[in-house]
Amino acid sequence: MIAWKNLNQLAAFQALQQKNEKVDLTREMAGEAGAARVSRYQIPMAGGLTYVYAAKQVNDQILSGLSALAEEAQLAEKFQELYEGAVINTGEKRLVLHQLTRGQLGKAVVADGVDKRAFYVAQQEKIADFARKVHAGEIVNEKGEKFTTVTQIGIGGSDLGPRAMYLALVNGAKAQGSFRMEARFISNVDPDDAAEVLRSVDLAHTLFILVSKSGTTLETLTNEAFVKDALKNAGLNPARHMIAVTSETSPLASSSDYLAAFFMDDYIGGRYSSTSAVGCAVLSLAFGPEIFARFLQGAADADAMAKEADPLKNAAMLDALIGVYERNILGYPSTAVLPYSQALSRFPAHLQQLDMESNGKSVNRFGEPVDYATGPVIFGEPGTNGQHSFYQLLHQGTDIVPLQFIGFRKNQAGMDVNIQNSTSQQKLCANVAAQIMAFACGKQDENRNKHFAGNRPSSIIVGDQLTPEALGALLAHFENKVMFQGFLWNLNSFDQEGVQLGKVLAKKVLAHETDGALKVYSDLLNI
Amino acid sequence: MIAWKNLNQLAAFQALQQKNEKVDLTREMAGEAGAARVSRYQIPMAGGLTYVYAAKQVNDQILSGLSALAEEAQLAEKFQELYEGAVINTGEKRLVLHQLTRGQLGKAVVADGVDKRAFYVAQQEKIADFARKVHAGEIVNEKGEKFTTVTQIGIGGSDLGPRAMYLALVNGAKAQGSFRMEARFISNVDPDDAAEVLRSVDLAHTLFILVSKSGTTLETLTNEAFVKDALKNAGLNPARHMIAVTSETSPLASSSDYLAAFFMDDYIGGRYSSTSAVGCAVLSLAFGPEIFARFLQGAADADAMAKEADPLKNAAMLDALIGVYERNILGYPSTAVLPYSQALSRFPAHLQQLDMESNGKSVNRFGEPVDYATGPVIFGEPGTNGQHSFYQLLHQGTDIVPLQFIGFRKNQAGMDVNIQNSTSQQKLCANVAAQIMAFACGKQDENRNKHFAGNRPSSIIVGDQLTPEALGALLAHFENKVMFQGFLWNLNSFDQEGVQLGKVLAKKVLAHETDGALKVYSDLLNI
Repeated sequence: MIAWKNLNQLAAFQALQQKNEKVDLTREMAGEAGAARVSRYQIPMAGGLTYVYAAKQVNDQILSGLSALAEEAQLAEKFQELYEGAVINTGEKRLVLHQLTRGQLGKAVVADGVDKRAFYVAQQEKIADFARKVHAGEIVNEKGEKFTTVTQIGIGGSDLGPRAMYLALVNGAKAQGSFRMEARFISNVDPDDAAEVLRSVDLAHTLFILVSKSGTTLETLTNEAFVKDALKNAGLNPARHMIAVTSETSPLASSSDYLAAFFMDDYIGGRYSSTSAVGCAVLSLAFGPEIFARFLQGAADADAMAKEADPLKNAAMLDALIGVYERNILGYPSTAVLPYSQALSRFPAHLQQLDMESNGKSVNRFGEPVDYATGPVIFGEPGTNGQHSFYQLLHQGTDIVPLQFIGFRKNQAGMDVNIQNSTSQQKLCANVAAQIMAFACGKQDENRNKHFAGNRPSSIIVGDQLTPEALGALLAHFENKVMFQGFLWNLNSFDQEGVQLGKVLAKKVLAHETDGALKVYSDLLNI
Repeated sequence: MIAWKNLNQLAAFQALQQKNEKVDLTREMAGEAGAARVSRYQIPMAGGLTYVYAAKQVNDQILSGLSALAEEAQLAEKFQELYEGAVINTGEKRLVLHQLTRGQLGKAVVADGVDKRAFYVAQQEKIADFARKVHAGEIVNEKGEKFTTVTQIGIGGSDLGPRAMYLALVNGAKAQGSFRMEARFISNVDPDDAAEVLRSVDLAHTLFILVSKSGTTLETLTNEAFVKDALKNAGLNPARHMIAVTSETSPLASSSDYLAAFFMDDYIGGRYSSTSAVGCAVLSLAFGPEIFARFLQGAADADAMAKEADPLKNAAMLDALIGVYERNILGYPSTAVLPYSQALSRFPAHLQQLDMESNGKSVNRFGEPVDYATGPVIFGEPGTNGQHSFYQLLHQGTDIVPLQFIGFRKNQAGMDVNIQNSTSQQKLCANVAAQIMAFACGKQDENRNKHFAGNRPSSIIVGDQLTPEALGALLAHFENKVMFQGFLWNLNSFDQEGVQLGKVLAKKVLAHETDGALKVYSDLLNI
């Protein structure tokens, strides 16, 4: 029987609180004992990745406390409830099924009269068929010419995840001959966003993907109109240049305005779109369905490993537990994500949405206020760039920011240069290894300005190369981490009521139905 | 006489601490009193901008406390010390002169035997002359053809600021006929970064700018070699395709490897490079020297206004004081920067460096540990995109994150579309106005899941349009804000000792001089 309890009602959490011990990394990570610790504090992940948590402020005793917490919080059982179709999204009374886009983790889930795994697979096959026809020149523009560019129109989850995944795969695809079409993205309602993208593409050879689950997203419909105007002004027929990804019940689903429509449903939230029909369409068009299938496989493997009940064998679960330990026992308010891979330049922005929109909540899943901290602020930029920017604060600032590094042994494009006896890739990897130790151990210096206190905890996910499988595993790792943290905090991680009030007020402003301060701000902005 | 005291030694700060009053924005911003508050809590800025702080948790009494703090901390006097050439960068024993690139704010500053304002102007004129010759086809490639693209090789301040400024101006330049050359940027030592940029440019018509003050930055020299290899492989002469921006004493200064060299000096830190020769070269080549001059003028006007001693008439000073109030009295650990302008998409990344690298310190300017919080974590993304991402946490998370909005009445490109009786630009502006009020006042709801507590403070900088002048003013505003905060926290905001340790350890890894945990990490990454 599942019991949904607040974090601070759990005996295992209270025990951790009472212990309130702080592991001293400057000691734990030193010498041969430190070396042994790094070799021991590792968990294999899917996609050839490894989660190394040696530089986190944990020890065997704390890990055993976290294992007890995982058991008492029934993390594995709750995950099973989720993937077998329980109404985990209590606020909106919905199932939560994004993992089903990549595999069947438990018994079949039937909703709305259909087997949901079969539904997702059918959409993937429809999209694969469509993408192959576009690549083969069977689906073409008005003049019978091939499409060369695909441009996604969508915002939030219809933008951040798919865009981050596209950027993560494009260099590898180019190097390995699986690059099919360039992808661009229009998201912001700022008209300069669409104008700039449209100026940079060859409209006659561009296929647009309109993404809106409800078919009513203000920004997306506005940008659709913007794009259709541009197509018409160029003497092109919008209906020959646009497909829709939407829900079956949306007004876009059967419109003759689109070449084709592919379907998502209410059981996959926007921020979990990368493996749904949303990510499938743009990534299959850009790189071919085979690359997308490999990406799904990496995610499926990660999901399967996330079923493990022992957190010392389950990277996503342990990452979640350590994050809660840092937030609620050690009191750290933010977390930085630092991929040493330029291809992951927008991955932190995706995680920012995934994490902060899922767990940035003040009420539990029953709508009762919680009296402990929940989701942290998430931010990050790729290394080594960040080293020359905000790392100053991470090393010597007055607050401690836990760090999540990501690194790969090989680069994607295969081009490199050897300077001063090392390649660029080796320099990149040397820097991330060095940073972990600098943050953990610091350096004593009599000149306090050059003194590093250390004890700045980090983990690293290490892989061989950022392949489609590794990317899928990485994506699913963080989705599952955020899910487990939502279970620990007893939140509904799958709604986002916090975005509603702004929308309501913006409509009032546009209808000129404002008074008081809102009217003064509106006047100031000339609306 | 200037007295450099720690923040908590100041009587005015202690008085604010003792009062420890929390302004309730849900009351203060309501009704006609709220409207009056918005009209009153504004300060004109340079570049046609206005700083509106009505939705910050201040009132007349707190503002008067902050004014007393400004006076006791001698903010205006310290700024004067700085621009008249005192050794403000105590750690490195250097002057701090970035404001002199845009104007003479006080008496002449002579260092190393030259008038520094004259030196900066001379470099600007040399660069303007060079850029005009490139545009006119007088400086050309080996085949006598015009350069069409400029690619900057640099990292940290040689990348983030200039890149953010380029992106901020490019749409406007295209719309107004001042677009001259496309600019690209190579920064990361990850070889996939350089490979991708080089793949996307027409090498034969690309002019590279190598930026390194010391001429020894690892990432930059490595990427220079990468680019030179690519040029040679394409049968091109690197010396005909590359200029250097460096210090006069660097090995790059008089090398025959470069078409030309332009100079910076030790008195302008990397993160203050946008108005130095670094920003000057890439922006003058991209948009022409006239646009760069307008950008400088906006910054010069902002600097002149920052001399005002009364914080109620000095936007940068008041913004700094309110930030310290939020950090040290209200205890908020991070700040989000939210420009409602796609052109400012990388402005938050620039501010992240500017702020976190300047004030992420634990020792005061004399090297003594401080016992209060200093620089906050800074992050942000453009609106309306962020609304569909991390705003959930901002509205309903358990921590309060102070917000810095930026908005403009008009867009840059001049293209727009009218849907449901409003333009995209109006929708953009309506959203930012709505968000300010939603954050400040919240909304009572019996369903706690739909309840918004409000009292989430924000300010907004409003402008007519993101012109070169407005951008210069915006840049200088934040530079001056960060400077004033450094004075308040009694920090040296102009060094960055926190980045050194990682560099030292990375060199050890590359030389295979490691043991213990660092060796295990190095092996794991195959170095």
